Amino acid sequence: MAKQKKQPRPKAETPKGFRDYFGAEVTERQEMLRQIAEVYDRYGFDPLETSAVETVEALGKFLPDVDRPNAGVFAFQEDGGSDDGTWLALRYDMTAPLARVAAQFRNDLPNPYRRYTMGPVWRNEKPGPGRFRQFYQCDADTVGAASVAADAEICAMLADTLEAVGIPRGDYIVRVNNRKVLNGVLEVAGLSGDDQEHERGIVLRAIDKLDKFGPDGVRLLLGEGRMDESGDFTKGAGLSEAQADTIMGFMDAKRDSGAETVARLRELVQGSDVGAKGVEELETIAELLAAQGYGPDRIVIDPSVVRGLGYYTGPVYEAELTFEITDEKGRPRQFGSVAGGGRYDDLVKRFTGQEVPATGVSIGVDRLLAALRAKGRIHGTRQGPVIVTVMDRDRMADYQAMASDLRAAGIRAEVYLGNPKNFGNQLKYADKRESPVAVIQGSDEKDRGVVQLKDLILGAKLAQDATLEEWKSQPAQTEVSRADLVQEVRAMMERHG
Amino acid sequence: MAKQKKQPRPKAETPKGFRDYFGAEVTERQEMLRQIAEVYDRYGFDPLETSAVETVEALGKFLPDVDRPNAGVFAFQEDGGSDDGTWLALRYDMTAPLARVAAQFRNDLPNPYRRYTMGPVWRNEKPGPGRFRQFYQCDADTVGAASVAADAEICAMLADTLEAVGIPRGDYIVRVNNRKVLNGVLEVAGLSGDDQEHERGIVLRAIDKLDKFGPDGVRLLLGEGRMDESGDFTKGAGLSEAQADTIMGFMDAKRDSGAETVARLRELVQGSDVGAKGVEELETIAELLAAQGYGPDRIVIDPSVVRGLGYYTGPVYEAELTFEITDEKGRPRQFGSVAGGGRYDDLVKRFTGQEVPATGVSIGVDRLLAALRAKGRIHGTRQGPVIVTVMDRDRMADYQAMASDLRAAGIRAEVYLGNPKNFGNQLKYADKRESPVAVIQGSDEKDRGVVQLKDLILGAKLAQDATLEEWKSQPAQTEVSRADLVQEVRAMMERHG
Repeated sequence: MAKQKKQPRPKAETPKGFRDYFGAEVTERQEMLRQIAEVYDRYGFDPLETSAVETVEALGKFLPDVDRPNAGVFAFQEDGGSDDGTWLALRYDMTAPLARVAAQFRNDLPNPYRRYTMGPVWRNEKPGPGRFRQFYQCDADTVGAASVAADAEICAMLADTLEAVGIPRGDYIVRVNNRKVLNGVLEVAGLSGDDQEHERGIVLRAIDKLDKFGPDGVRLLLGEGRMDESGDFTKGAGLSEAQADTIMGFMDAKRDSGAETVARLRELVQGSDVGAKGVEELETIAELLAAQGYGPDRIVIDPSVVRGLGYYTGPVYEAELTFEITDEKGRPRQFGSVAGGGRYDDLVKRFTGQEVPATGVSIGVDRLLAALRAKGRIHGTRQGPVIVTVMDRDRMADYQAMASDLRAAGIRAEVYLGNPKNFGNQLKYADKRESPVAVIQGSDEKDRGVVQLKDLILGAKLAQDATLEEWKSQPAQTEVSRADLVQEVRAMMERHG
Repeated sequence: MAKQKKQPRPKAETPKGFRDYFGAEVTERQEMLRQIAEVYDRYGFDPLETSAVETVEALGKFLPDVDRPNAGVFAFQEDGGSDDGTWLALRYDMTAPLARVAAQFRNDLPNPYRRYTMGPVWRNEKPGPGRFRQFYQCDADTVGAASVAADAEICAMLADTLEAVGIPRGDYIVRVNNRKVLNGVLEVAGLSGDDQEHERGIVLRAIDKLDKFGPDGVRLLLGEGRMDESGDFTKGAGLSEAQADTIMGFMDAKRDSGAETVARLRELVQGSDVGAKGVEELETIAELLAAQGYGPDRIVIDPSVVRGLGYYTGPVYEAELTFEITDEKGRPRQFGSVAGGGRYDDLVKRFTGQEVPATGVSIGVDRLLAALRAKGRIHGTRQGPVIVTVMDRDRMADYQAMASDLRAAGIRAEVYLGNPKNFGNQLKYADKRESPVAVIQGSDEKDRGVVQLKDLILGAKLAQDATLEEWKSQPAQTEVSRADLVQEVRAMMERHG
């Protein structure tokens, strides 16, 4: 006989940078997305689910994020590598597919087109701690509305959304700024030349780091550069004192009321048309929001918000959670940003040649979930099922009927389906499932028309506090009539709320 | 200045074989999946969401479907093509990732492990009409339970699920068979030799085609072969008359009751141990289901079900919808299969070397949605938002406040955000959005503290039936006090149910 080559066993591993989600991780995210969709829907946004795969041509090969020019996509050729196969790629965000859809279906879609979408996106990046190559985004965008009323609406919707998922008012703030104001400030500072794009990039990134480095750090980045704690040096924009003063003045322009901030910004951009236009837009946004009752306790004009992405052209906005959490090193810090977005007017133009105004927000689903966990709004656990144990494997039909009765009454329930020989294993299983109640019926109980109910929640409490002897006497176990199974199980579950 | 190369514009196209889902297509699927999850959950199944990407090693390169050995996956190398990058691929089903998870987390997961999962899968196949390269699957599996009680449970759950999503009892049937019985029949027919794998494959596929070709067609495929209407010839298994009789007898073994079918099958597999074991398992399944009240009006033993996949090792099951629809050619036909599955005991073994019993079902989400549409349970449309029109662009804040009031009362509403100059465009927009009511307030109405409400549903009805003159007189428009906006809009919407 020919020798058979033994194939090595494949490794059972989630690919590097990817992860699996179990149980409550799945349902809690689902529930949060459902709540968000409800708010988006009420604002007239329509759901859209694009394919996960786009042509590389439509997608553009790289992320439009100036901070990470090398960040890539997962790309592959259509029919396994023949030369004429189309190159396809997994979407890296929800905005690029929206631009494609808005161009492709422009004759059929309502105009303006408000849409929301939620789902995974993929990044071919080096994975790191807490940094995954597949993660959820949840976006809402308005395409085709030039009016900043569209931006204001999204800011209001974002505030409503945070409250709907369980972030109380006072624990979040939506900050609004306008790229045009920033452009005006750059113009006033003498930084609007075509040959100064490099400096402008550094300034933008420096402002974006205000939270992280503080005003002094940003000031260093605007000037010669900044050395971090590890000794690494980041080269700065090389601005003059006067130029840096102008920029710092902009970042510091926030006042107690929106009207005062707007007045201060107007001073700062004096002489710049684009700056004046930006200030006017911010003023309109502030007025629209005030008229709907969104005061500065929820939405504020804040010049320190710039948002990293290079494609923003007008208003930008960011939602921050303001309550404190304890970081990895045990220090208290603010939770920080969970959503952001802004106006981008050039993305659809790539396809059609026509400028289409658009504005939208993206919620960082995993960060918002983490925030809800930090607030104790969700707990990462869920009620396990009632376990009907198997004492006599020939009476499986009886046990299934019990589970069936419980389910018919809306109670999550299952029969133990492993090898029933070792009863201890059945209880260990119930424990692992976080089961509230185990149902037990041996032949003796069967003859007497009763079942034993074991209160596993009480049992667990006793196990913590009670002696072995007390535990063995099984005080958490009671005998009830088979006919009363459903109501007795329900009563036992309700006892623990 | 250097000449700038002009880049050609990218084409705005969904990649071939992929599609986008809009509005009700998204929400109706979501709602159906939610209903399914609720039933799965009640049966004690836990949600799992694996990454869309697996290593090619873990996945196995190809689909395990004997019918389509060339069907491929979308694969790509981890870091853009360097030689040492891991090969990754999009999952092509939900079973392969489950096998990987069951192996990877075997020390942490409960045993048995009941899990459900829902999400897209991808196939690198030639797309065709109604055949997409990305589609949803919704699976439930029990890993680690050798008992056929696990199979019976999934059949019962499948029946419950169909009813939960809106398929009434009588409009579906779950058919159960057992591969072991088929293996027994093959043994009796003298087809169990190691050198007869090819013939067995043809027999399996032939049986699977009973619905399509009828008994005569299957008989031809068991013998010399079959010529289809286009003149194409499919070579048959080349069985003798006696062998073919045995197989045909098996397919015809269904009787009025499960007990009678089981008795008939027992005759057919006489002399085959594996066949006898299979009949015994079917009998147990029938008993378990009967004890829980799942009679032959919902779940039947039916020897004609074989399921294509080569990896099934025991019970197999399939849910068919039995009501008639009209096909593309206007002929009535039964809707057919919407879900199927069975027992597979070797998939986890690939990773661990240890056999792990498993059984599970996969629901064809899109087919089930199509069925619900055919039954009129869902309609592919959803209520559009109330549109607050813009008569005076300086009073945007007033209009936003109206939309805000409506939303606060739970009514879907939005302000028109396009260019408000042409009022006709605003009404066209409302029409496209399937808006029930348009709210109109010009300066005159503003001064009098009123708004105009346009009943667009009534308007559309009038437009169908009324003359142009009647239409122009706008009988579907009424004036109400601004203070009564919310209640009047609600009343207008309720008028149409």
